[in-house]
Amino acid sequence: MIRRDTTIRVRYRDTDQMGVVYHGVYLEFFETGRTELLRQLGFPYASLEESGVMLPLIDAYIKMLRPARYDNLLTVTATVVRPITARMRIDYEIHYAGALLVSGYTVHAFTTVDGMRPVRPPKSFLEMLDREEGNETA
Amino acid sequence: MIRRDTTIRVRYRDTDQMGVVYHGVYLEFFETGRTELLRQLGFPYASLEESGVMLPLIDAYIKMLRPARYDNLLTVTATVVRPITARMRIDYEIHYAGALLVSGYTVHAFTTVDGMRPVRPPKSFLEMLDREEGNETA
Amino acid sequence: MIRRDTTIRVRYRDTDQMGVVYHGVYLEFFETGRTELLRQLGFPYASLEESGVMLPLIDAYIKMLRPARYDNLLTVTATVVRPITARMRIDYEIHYAGALLVSGYTVHAFTTVDGMRPVRPPKSFLEMLDREEGNETA
Amino acid sequence: MIRRDTTIRVRYRDTDQMGVVYHGVYLEFFETGRTELLRQLGFPYASLEESGVMLPLIDAYIKMLRPARYDNLLTVTATVVRPITARMRIDYEIHYAGALLVSGYTVHAFTTVDGMRPVRPPKSFLEMLDREEGNETA
Repeated sequence: MIRRDTTIRVRYRDTDQMGVVYHGVYLEFFETGRTELLRQLGFPYASLEESGVMLPLIDAYIKMLRPARYDNLLTVTATVVRPITARMRIDYEIHYAGALLVSGYTVHAFTTVDGMRPVRPPKSFLEMLDREEGNETA
Repeated sequence: MIRRDTTIRVRYRDTDQMGVVYHGVYLEFFETGRTELLRQLGFPYASLEESGVMLPLIDAYIKMLRPARYDNLLTVTATVVRPITARMRIDYEIHYAGALLVSGYTVHAFTTVDGMRPVRPPKSFLEMLDREEGNETA
Repeated sequence: MIRRDTTIRVRYRDTDQMGVVYHGVYLEFFETGRTELLRQLGFPYASLEESGVMLPLIDAYIKMLRPARYDNLLTVTATVVRPITARMRIDYEIHYAGALLVSGYTVHAFTTVDGMRPVRPPKSFLEMLDREEGNETA
Repeated sequence: MIRRDTTIRVRYRDTDQMGVVYHGVYLEFFETGRTELLRQLGFPYASLEESGVMLPLIDAYIKMLRPARYDNLLTVTATVVRPITARMRIDYEIHYAGALLVSGYTVHAFTTVDGMRPVRPPKSFLEMLDREEGNETA
């Protein structure tokens, strides 16, 4: 399993008048988890875009078990789902103080930077994932 | 089918550097569609909360077909999915210029205003839905 | 005075756990007021950009008198401050139920679409403002 | 000068179709700078609220010199402006790669947690600021 953790501090801006994190904000937390996963794997998203590949979102799912609250220091765990075909799915879990609060996934296409045409996943990206998985099962 | 339409103008704030609406913003557009659906049905969400009932989100799904862009005047169609049990599902479609851009759903629990205990859907709410459906099939 | 009104409904997304609109959101409400002002004057911002002119923000000020709350139907009044030189200032007032809640301003430069070089305000834009002011004082 | 630094990574969510950070987002970055300043001073905002004191925003100012961009790792410097009377002003500077991008300030009242009545700044808070300033000038 290729997965990485990131921590996020809940801001006032992220809460709503229920006193909990607004549900749409979890997609922003997923973004941070996904971005830091790619960075830690040596493929920062900014450099993917510079190499001509974009990862627009195709669909997304969020499941809320318990609310996150102001000032909570959350752990976002992002996991690459193999195999990667023309699309890539990332799974997410958000924990606080040992409890699972939110889970979900996002699915992304590989496209040209104008978002108009599908492209193959970069070969160096797939090789890195193979190496990672090899390391982890070794 | 109990459904209502609302229009939303895409703001600069809603876009990202891909030049399209950021995916998480569609959950905010779903919120507006749901809120205006309830208002048009005579049950504004603010008055539901005043009567002691809250509708926290349990899960949500978004499917993106084509991107919405700055200044687009979008139509959000929100549909109540029957029957309503302890939970209520709302389906959404977002159209622009005749094309379907985004679809999805949200599922909500009925709870006390502190969000701590489930409650039955208000009887007057269910009766209104029955009347509505009766009117539409009549 | 060249000014126009727009109404905005406060969403759950706009509130924070104080039960009021998060202060940063007022800049988004200012954006909507400014956009609708330009549209009503016949110069929609999207077409300004298409003609090669952008209006990046230089500075902004917000003064909060009373909080706006969930579901309030706010009136945003945006006013063009004359004369317009290399920059344009827009003033804003946000009212609810007859009370002034928030005031402020934004200052914008006229630049090329890449934001790199200043340009003169479009002549047709300045002429329109002259006509508008003539009409109003006539 | 009582000041502290915090770093913030610019997310896709923070950008707009100009390819830069949306101006309203800087108030969210100011929030993070202010929150981490208070935390580092031993007065986390969450515990201030628990002790019955809230710091609603009275007014705010932003000056933009250069745009921040996607994936920039920004440094937000927040400075307490002395003396503190019934209000507290915090100044901010946002730097990237040695360049000042944005400056500004926010002014906050001290109120009861319902936001309805002004209160004196907590004595322990003022004493902490005196100690801090003493340490720094010592």
